Amino acid sequence: MSDGIIAAMKLSALGEFELIELIKIAVRPTHQPSSETSARIMVDIGDDTAAWSGSDLVQLATTDSLVENVHFKFRWCTWEDLGHKSLAVNLSDIAAMGGRARFALVSLSCPGDVDSDQVLEYYRGMTRLATKHEVVIIGGNLTSSPVVTSTVCVFGEAFPDHILTRGAANPGDAIVVTGTLGSAAAAIALLGDRAVSAEAVPAPLLRALVRPEARLSEAQLLVDLGVRCAIDISDGLLSDLGHICECSGVSATLHAAQVPLSPEYRGTAELHTKYALVGGEDYELLFACDPSLVPQVAEALMCPVTVVGEITSRTVSPAVTVLDHEGLPLDVGRPGWRHFAL
Amino acid sequence: MSDGIIAAMKLSALGEFELIELIKIAVRPTHQPSSETSARIMVDIGDDTAAWSGSDLVQLATTDSLVENVHFKFRWCTWEDLGHKSLAVNLSDIAAMGGRARFALVSLSCPGDVDSDQVLEYYRGMTRLATKHEVVIIGGNLTSSPVVTSTVCVFGEAFPDHILTRGAANPGDAIVVTGTLGSAAAAIALLGDRAVSAEAVPAPLLRALVRPEARLSEAQLLVDLGVRCAIDISDGLLSDLGHICECSGVSATLHAAQVPLSPEYRGTAELHTKYALVGGEDYELLFACDPSLVPQVAEALMCPVTVVGEITSRTVSPAVTVLDHEGLPLDVGRPGWRHFAL
Repeated sequence: MSDGIIAAMKLSALGEFELIELIKIAVRPTHQPSSETSARIMVDIGDDTAAWSGSDLVQLATTDSLVENVHFKFRWCTWEDLGHKSLAVNLSDIAAMGGRARFALVSLSCPGDVDSDQVLEYYRGMTRLATKHEVVIIGGNLTSSPVVTSTVCVFGEAFPDHILTRGAANPGDAIVVTGTLGSAAAAIALLGDRAVSAEAVPAPLLRALVRPEARLSEAQLLVDLGVRCAIDISDGLLSDLGHICECSGVSATLHAAQVPLSPEYRGTAELHTKYALVGGEDYELLFACDPSLVPQVAEALMCPVTVVGEITSRTVSPAVTVLDHEGLPLDVGRPGWRHFAL
Repeated sequence: MSDGIIAAMKLSALGEFELIELIKIAVRPTHQPSSETSARIMVDIGDDTAAWSGSDLVQLATTDSLVENVHFKFRWCTWEDLGHKSLAVNLSDIAAMGGRARFALVSLSCPGDVDSDQVLEYYRGMTRLATKHEVVIIGGNLTSSPVVTSTVCVFGEAFPDHILTRGAANPGDAIVVTGTLGSAAAAIALLGDRAVSAEAVPAPLLRALVRPEARLSEAQLLVDLGVRCAIDISDGLLSDLGHICECSGVSATLHAAQVPLSPEYRGTAELHTKYALVGGEDYELLFACDPSLVPQVAEALMCPVTVVGEITSRTVSPAVTVLDHEGLPLDVGRPGWRHFAL
């Protein structure tokens, strides 16, 4: 490396410490001298821990892992996509608490025969998204593993008494979602058929799957407008609404025909509303609030805002009742992803 | 589960949400109502993120992963050991910054054919160590994976201007280590020979490998006494001293004969001082300070404290010169672990 030019090398040849030096360069754009978050950094990548100056705000922390062939396949997910999504799913959790994301630690495990430029693509994908939301990649970990595993931990902050939780829904509240649902699950369903290549999947569906956007600014607006109950839709609408019901001690009625679908989703004739109800990985916000707030919310947010049901007093199981377009109960089967199902 | 008695089940049969309920119970002892840290919790396991009240102290965050058959094998590491060690290696990083550990997020990836009681043993091993250091397990993530991967993220706090960094060594400083070195590497060397069972490895060596103790209270004393430069020995003494030299812009001389070895390590005739120099996973503290501070430090700490060398002005490569018992340069080969070496 004496000439300063580094060609792509297998990680097994490059070594951990050399790779860390390249990663420091790749994530440097997240260190924006003008940003309030960067100004707080006291110890950056390259010591035993990261360190930053504290604040009296509420401290938020979350972590999520993506595992090769469990959550993604390189057949349809690039290294850059993986970097983006690994951060996005965590940012979505910070959004779901009404917080501002600040710092990220990135743990990447991968085989020694991976090329350094693939790893750098991963960090570049993550860096682009981090820069957009002024999140600083401040540390992490690299290890060898037979299977690529990406675990990101994000720290955020929120104002006291201004956080969104799963436990704040009340009977009479409207159940509202941002954006459209089911596109990521539709992409997975299409890709599950091995005869279908990634190129044959409608681009907006594939994009929903590999490049989800966290609703951070939308969540800030919700908090400002007085909303206090939210979750991000990662397991699936029905499952995540079930979490709200459980934590809030309420029940809910969901109107399947009101669930917003993207035009591309609607255009895929063989897919049903079911994917939008029980498919996961939408990373939209699901929130509950007084119905009188909905018009203001719809006005303030720059994305679709759709009422899909209402919170009711707690009834016997199931907590969530789904009604079809005629108002009759709809059986949509087992809700949400179950990671350990074989 | 209607009778309240849950037999060990495969994760694939139990499901993620049911397992999370069992984990909440397993980690409950870390929530000690009397502890200052527990009193700060605002949102616990079971929402989108954990949340706690902030402070104006320096915020520390670190993460480390242990991967099956890369960092450990179940032939010699129990699930309880894995839980303990996964937390310990992160606590060691907080110690190396002079911080107090506060909260942990735990990401466990494992195959669906693992038993729930194995996963609970993992959390119990971690809970015992967390309770000892008043660290609260406040969230995390569970995913399926073909290979067991344990990634823990720990948050800590330190007083401003009272942190230990790698960059604060000065020429003339004594180089000091806590405890004894090489035991974990000696255990790995013995276990590497598949003819040797875990039972045949001297218990103190195996214990050093699977149940390392983080030097949190010792590090607090170092900071109080005025020490400002430290690292924990995870990669190996020579490699970690190299990190201090690089970050501090200094060189170092190490006296191999002064490196402290445990009696069990000395008793293993076929092992050489080399393991204590380049073997990793000691999780002892390596620090540099004015030689005049050493007697006070030795008096204050409840563990062995040994001067193993001295910091010198920066010279040409190598930054670290190792001398043998006659004061002659010793070639100890490639320092530290290299994760991606095949």
